[in-house]
Amino acid sequence: MNFIAASIAAAGAAIAAGIGNGQVISKTIEGMSRQPELSGKLQSTMFIGVGLIEAVPIIAIVVSFILLSR
Amino acid sequence: MNFIAASIAAAGAAIAAGIGNGQVISKTIEGMSRQPELSGKLQSTMFIGVGLIEAVPIIAIVVSFILLSR
Amino acid sequence: MNFIAASIAAAGAAIAAGIGNGQVISKTIEGMSRQPELSGKLQSTMFIGVGLIEAVPIIAIVVSFILLSR
Amino acid sequence: MNFIAASIAAAGAAIAAGIGNGQVISKTIEGMSRQPELSGKLQSTMFIGVGLIEAVPIIAIVVSFILLSR
Amino acid sequence: MNFIAASIAAAGAAIAAGIGNGQVISKTIEGMSRQPELSGKLQSTMFIGVGLIEAVPIIAIVVSFILLSR
Amino acid sequence: MNFIAASIAAAGAAIAAGIGNGQVISKTIEGMSRQPELSGKLQSTMFIGVGLIEAVPIIAIVVSFILLSR
Amino acid sequence: MNFIAASIAAAGAAIAAGIGNGQVISKTIEGMSRQPELSGKLQSTMFIGVGLIEAVPIIAIVVSFILLSR
Amino acid sequence: MNFIAASIAAAGAAIAAGIGNGQVISKTIEGMSRQPELSGKLQSTMFIGVGLIEAVPIIAIVVSFILLSR
Amino acid sequence: MNFIAASIAAAGAAIAAGIGNGQVISKTIEGMSRQPELSGKLQSTMFIGVGLIEAVPIIAIVVSFILLSR
Amino acid sequence: MNFIAASIAAAGAAIAAGIGNGQVISKTIEGMSRQPELSGKLQSTMFIGVGLIEAVPIIAIVVSFILLSR
Amino acid sequence: MNFIAASIAAAGAAIAAGIGNGQVISKTIEGMSRQPELSGKLQSTMFIGVGLIEAVPIIAIVVSFILLSR
Amino acid sequence: MNFIAASIAAAGAAIAAGIGNGQVISKTIEGMSRQPELSGKLQSTMFIGVGLIEAVPIIAIVVSFILLSR
Amino acid sequence: MNFIAASIAAAGAAIAAGIGNGQVISKTIEGMSRQPELSGKLQSTMFIGVGLIEAVPIIAIVVSFILLSR
Amino acid sequence: MNFIAASIAAAGAAIAAGIGNGQVISKTIEGMSRQPELSGKLQSTMFIGVGLIEAVPIIAIVVSFILLSR
Repeated sequence: MNFIAASIAAAGAAIAAGIGNGQVISKTIEGMSRQPELSGKLQSTMFIGVGLIEAVPIIAIVVSFILLSR
Repeated sequence: MNFIAASIAAAGAAIAAGIGNGQVISKTIEGMSRQPELSGKLQSTMFIGVGLIEAVPIIAIVVSFILLSR
Repeated sequence: MNFIAASIAAAGAAIAAGIGNGQVISKTIEGMSRQPELSGKLQSTMFIGVGLIEAVPIIAIVVSFILLSR
Repeated sequence: MNFIAASIAAAGAAIAAGIGNGQVISKTIEGMSRQPELSGKLQSTMFIGVGLIEAVPIIAIVVSFILLSR
Repeated sequence: MNFIAASIAAAGAAIAAGIGNGQVISKTIEGMSRQPELSGKLQSTMFIGVGLIEAVPIIAIVVSFILLSR
Repeated sequence: MNFIAASIAAAGAAIAAGIGNGQVISKTIEGMSRQPELSGKLQSTMFIGVGLIEAVPIIAIVVSFILLSR
Repeated sequence: MNFIAASIAAAGAAIAAGIGNGQVISKTIEGMSRQPELSGKLQSTMFIGVGLIEAVPIIAIVVSFILLSR
Repeated sequence: MNFIAASIAAAGAAIAAGIGNGQVISKTIEGMSRQPELSGKLQSTMFIGVGLIEAVPIIAIVVSFILLSR
Repeated sequence: MNFIAASIAAAGAAIAAGIGNGQVISKTIEGMSRQPELSGKLQSTMFIGVGLIEAVPIIAIVVSFILLSR
Repeated sequence: MNFIAASIAAAGAAIAAGIGNGQVISKTIEGMSRQPELSGKLQSTMFIGVGLIEAVPIIAIVVSFILLSR
Repeated sequence: MNFIAASIAAAGAAIAAGIGNGQVISKTIEGMSRQPELSGKLQSTMFIGVGLIEAVPIIAIVVSFILLSR
Repeated sequence: MNFIAASIAAAGAAIAAGIGNGQVISKTIEGMSRQPELSGKLQSTMFIGVGLIEAVPIIAIVVSFILLSR
Repeated sequence: MNFIAASIAAAGAAIAAGIGNGQVISKTIEGMSRQPELSGKLQSTMFIGVGLIEAVPIIAIVVSFILLSR
Repeated sequence: MNFIAASIAAAGAAIAAGIGNGQVISKTIEGMSRQPELSGKLQSTMFIGVGLIEAVPIIAIVVSFILLSR
């Protein structure tokens, strides 16, 4: 039963990170292609944003590994 | 049974944080690429917003860890 | 059975807060990037709005903790 | 069985309040950023609207608490 | 069994009221921000509309309470 | 079994009335904010429309009450 | 078993009538607010259309009542 | 078992007729409000179209009544 | 078991015909309101199109009647 | 069991043909209302397209009849 | 069990071919109504495209027939 | 059990190829109708793209055939 | 049980590759039809992108083959 | 049971990577076709973004392989 639980948590984390990061990074690239002189500032904001978005999925991955070791 | 419950809570929290944060951060980057002189004010609002959005998912993560320790 | 119930309530609360807050805060950032001189008034409305939105999810979190202690 | 029922009612109430309030408050902020001189009138309408929207979810929360005490 | 039934009715009523009221009130606020001199007439129509929308959900809430007392 | 049936009918009626009425009333308010001199004629059409929309959901509510009394 | 069947038919009829009528009546109100001099002709078409739309849901309601009396 | 089958057929027919008719009649009203001099020709096409759309749902209703009489 | 099968086939056929016909007929009415002098040619194409669309749903209805007679 | 299978295949074929044909024929009518002098060429392409689209659903109908005769 | 499997494969193939072909052929007709002098080249590309799209659904139909003969 | 598995793999492969190829080929036809002089280059890219898209569905078809031969 | 698992992994991989590749390749063709002189650079980026997208689905295919050999 | 779990995790990872990468790479190609002189900078951002997006799905793939080896 915990195997199914681990896979649900891992798949949910992967989908959440894929949706959130895809949205943020594609907006960054769109912004860079409009105003190339802001590429440094936009990239640093992108790194912060990706870090903030991946916080909760990483914890869900931790939950998944804890479930695997049970 | 509590393993499944923990993974549902963790996956829901990850998806909720991914959707909410992705929306806020991508709007911030879009705003910064239009008006670079507002980047400081927009970033500080972004940090507040990310904190407010992640409040409830973090509690759901706490619920997930409580369920894991049962 | 109450473990599943607690996780459903927590996940629903997280998703509800993520959708509602993400919508409000992204609109606030969009408004601030258009009219920077209104940023104080918009932020205070944003805090009120986030508080009003999170009222019901917080109660759902309370329901989740009551279910955990059963 | 009533535990599951309580969590369904609580989650439904949270999602309903999140969708409705998020829509109303984001429209209010959008209106305020267009016409700042109407911010008082718009905010008072927003408070009335949030009160009207949360009426039924609050009753669903009451249903959830009644189910918890059974 | 009637506990589940009561929660389905309550959650459906909450979601229905949230969608309908959110749509009406956000349109009212949008209309008020365009033409502030019509705010009285629009608000009175909004109150009538909210009353008409909440008629059926309130009856569903009544159904939910009848199911709780069975 | 009839408890579940009553709640399905009541929830369906509530959601149907919420969607239909919300659409009609929001269009009425949008029309009133454009042409205020037509507000009487639009409101009377709105009342007729709400009555026509709520005819079938009210019958579904009646079905729900008949199921409750079984 | 026929109780569940009756509620499915009633809920489907309510949702079908809600979607169809809401679409027709909101288009009528939108047309009336553009060309007020056509309001009589549009309303008569609306009544015919509502009658045509509600034909099949009313029969589904009849099916629901037949199922209730079994 | 045939009771459930009858209700599925009736509900499907109601939803199909609601979607199809709602789309056709609302387009007719939209066309009439643009060009009032074509209202006769558009209405006659609408009646033909409604008849063609309701052909298959009416047969599904017949299937539903045959299932009821089994 | 064949009763359920007959209702699934009938409901699927009704929904398919409703979606396809509604789309074609509403486009015809939209085209007629733009260019009234082409109404004959458009209507004849509409009749051909409705006939082509309803070919497969009618066969599904035949499948449903065959299932009823088993 | 093969009755259910036959109805699934028939319903899937009906829905597939309804979506595909509806899209093609409505585009044809839209093209004819823009350029009436191309109506012959567009109609012949429409007939080819409808034939190509209905190839696979017709085979699915054949599968359905084979399942009925088992 | 293989009857259900055959119908799932056939229905999936029908829906896939319906969506893909409908999209390609409707784009071809749209392109032909804009530039009639390219109709030959567009039609030949359409035939190639339909052949490429229907490759995998035809194999799924083959899978369905193999399942029927088991 | 492997019959159901084979049909799921085949149906998934068909739907995936239908969506991907339909999108690519319709874009190619749209591009050819805009710039007819690029039709050779666009078609060669289309063939490469269709080959790349169908790589994974073909492997899924192989999985399906392996499952059939078990 | 591993047969079903293998088909789920294969179907998921096919759908993922179909969505991702279809999106990338259709954008490439759209870009090539706008600026034909960039076709070499766009195609090389397309090949890199397709390779990056197909990395994870190929691993899922590997998982599917491992499951088949169990 | 762990076979199903491994396939759910692998399929979720594949879909997440497909959605996220497809969005980012298609935006990159769109940006390159608008401003060819930025292609180097956009590509490097694309590689970073793809790496960040694929972090969590790769971990989900690892979870899948751990589940396979149990």
